[in-house]
Amino acid sequence: MNLNAYLVSRQKMIDRALDSHLPKANVKPPTIHQAMRYSLFAGGKRLRPILCLAAAEACGGKTSQALPLACAIECIHTYSLVHDDLPSMDNDDFRRGRPTCHRVFGEGIAVLAGDALLTVAFEIISQAKPTKRYSVATLLRETAAAAGSQRLIAGQVADLEAEGKKVTRQQLRYIHENKTAAILTTAVRLGAMSANADSKKLSAITNFGRALGLAFQVIDDILDVTQTTEKLGKSAGKDLAAKKATYPAVIGLEKSREEAGRLTRQAHRGLAIFSSKGETLRALANYLLEREY
Amino acid sequence: MNLNAYLVSRQKMIDRALDSHLPKANVKPPTIHQAMRYSLFAGGKRLRPILCLAAAEACGGKTSQALPLACAIECIHTYSLVHDDLPSMDNDDFRRGRPTCHRVFGEGIAVLAGDALLTVAFEIISQAKPTKRYSVATLLRETAAAAGSQRLIAGQVADLEAEGKKVTRQQLRYIHENKTAAILTTAVRLGAMSANADSKKLSAITNFGRALGLAFQVIDDILDVTQTTEKLGKSAGKDLAAKKATYPAVIGLEKSREEAGRLTRQAHRGLAIFSSKGETLRALANYLLEREY
Repeated sequence: MNLNAYLVSRQKMIDRALDSHLPKANVKPPTIHQAMRYSLFAGGKRLRPILCLAAAEACGGKTSQALPLACAIECIHTYSLVHDDLPSMDNDDFRRGRPTCHRVFGEGIAVLAGDALLTVAFEIISQAKPTKRYSVATLLRETAAAAGSQRLIAGQVADLEAEGKKVTRQQLRYIHENKTAAILTTAVRLGAMSANADSKKLSAITNFGRALGLAFQVIDDILDVTQTTEKLGKSAGKDLAAKKATYPAVIGLEKSREEAGRLTRQAHRGLAIFSSKGETLRALANYLLEREY
Repeated sequence: MNLNAYLVSRQKMIDRALDSHLPKANVKPPTIHQAMRYSLFAGGKRLRPILCLAAAEACGGKTSQALPLACAIECIHTYSLVHDDLPSMDNDDFRRGRPTCHRVFGEGIAVLAGDALLTVAFEIISQAKPTKRYSVATLLRETAAAAGSQRLIAGQVADLEAEGKKVTRQQLRYIHENKTAAILTTAVRLGAMSANADSKKLSAITNFGRALGLAFQVIDDILDVTQTTEKLGKSAGKDLAAKKATYPAVIGLEKSREEAGRLTRQAHRGLAIFSSKGETLRALANYLLEREY
């Protein structure tokens, strides 16, 4: 399998679908649609939607069934970045190598662009095709819960409240589980649901998603310490400067690397029941977890 | 009909339902649930959810079927107020007679509380009971579209961009149609849908909602000019001070009153086909449109 070619073709598929779901940039009022598109088409890796599609395939489903759900997840992910970057939150000037949404469009429009991306995610969910086991109501509940005040937003709140304070390893795990792993887990769960996965497969894909999501965030934390701004496309060392709760800060760099390895192996174990159908997910996990760190 | 007793009993019914849909204030992380509840239980009139329930009844349905939809609408309305009050938007210190969310919890948490209220609205929609004509997917699409970048958020953007500029009557109408009338119209439409209304009834309730929503906003604009801060529970004269686009500013106080009257009559015409079943909606329209101005 040529992973690079695969990633590029999947990114194109997802970009086309996202483009079709979003109002064009000249639709009234143009400012908001320009701002939404500025952040959504900023060269993101489309990691979560790609995982969603791959999970659907691992469960014997079609990418076309999973595609709206994959798009919804990417809209939610992008909304969370736009709001997270705001001056009242992380106050970040750069994201994916470009000025953040509020730097370009102003803070008020950035708040609204995030709101609009979150809202359009749910509008897209309304267009998803239900399966025998999973109704649109079930897909909606799954997505809203993952994005809600006890998951994604809970992670943001805990992250915000941890700034400048000494956090325990347990608190750090709580932040990562909710801020990163929740949406990533839901991405693969929605993919599995679009393939009408039975409870055994859904449970395996859930374990995979959670371990992958945690590993991914640990590695992100490590990269913030070890990489340059240029390579990251966002401000490096920012976490340290802002006294953010990160793995290297709490347990040290070496232990963080061990933790990433342990979680990676755990993610792989989750894929065992998919045998050869899990190959793509396996390759994606390796790709994500073997980033330079 | 004793309207006051009716309103109080409906407010209680809606408050109880909202309370059951929202995580308790001590659920982790408490800050976000306290902030959500602070704004959601700030003594709002519950106008939109009450209209939703009354529309269901006018169409021969039950309030219990409409109640989750009514709650979702109130969560969306409250989220829009929380974000609208932010320093980067209208920068309002008071709302419903109390300090605004960001004044109490800080700007970051207020952004997240708004996000969480919007998200929980969709989670509540997932629990709505579909009818023969209207699936959960249809209810979801209706709600997301009303809250989205071409309706509610479009109105906010246009409002933000109109600040300090001279706006035409047409632009003002665009702002009000999207910022206020869209959600109010969706409130009564969702009520009608929960009652499995046929297309004729749905169309009549839509016309009613739009006219009522516009009339309501014209009157709100008038009250901002003519009332005191104490009576309004929010900063009076604020619109004028901020050079906001309002009816009195664009067409004058007298013409604004005429416009309110014209829209009120239009709203009443929309209720004609409901005959005696439309009594409650009629009484609510009169109540809303005969506020002191």
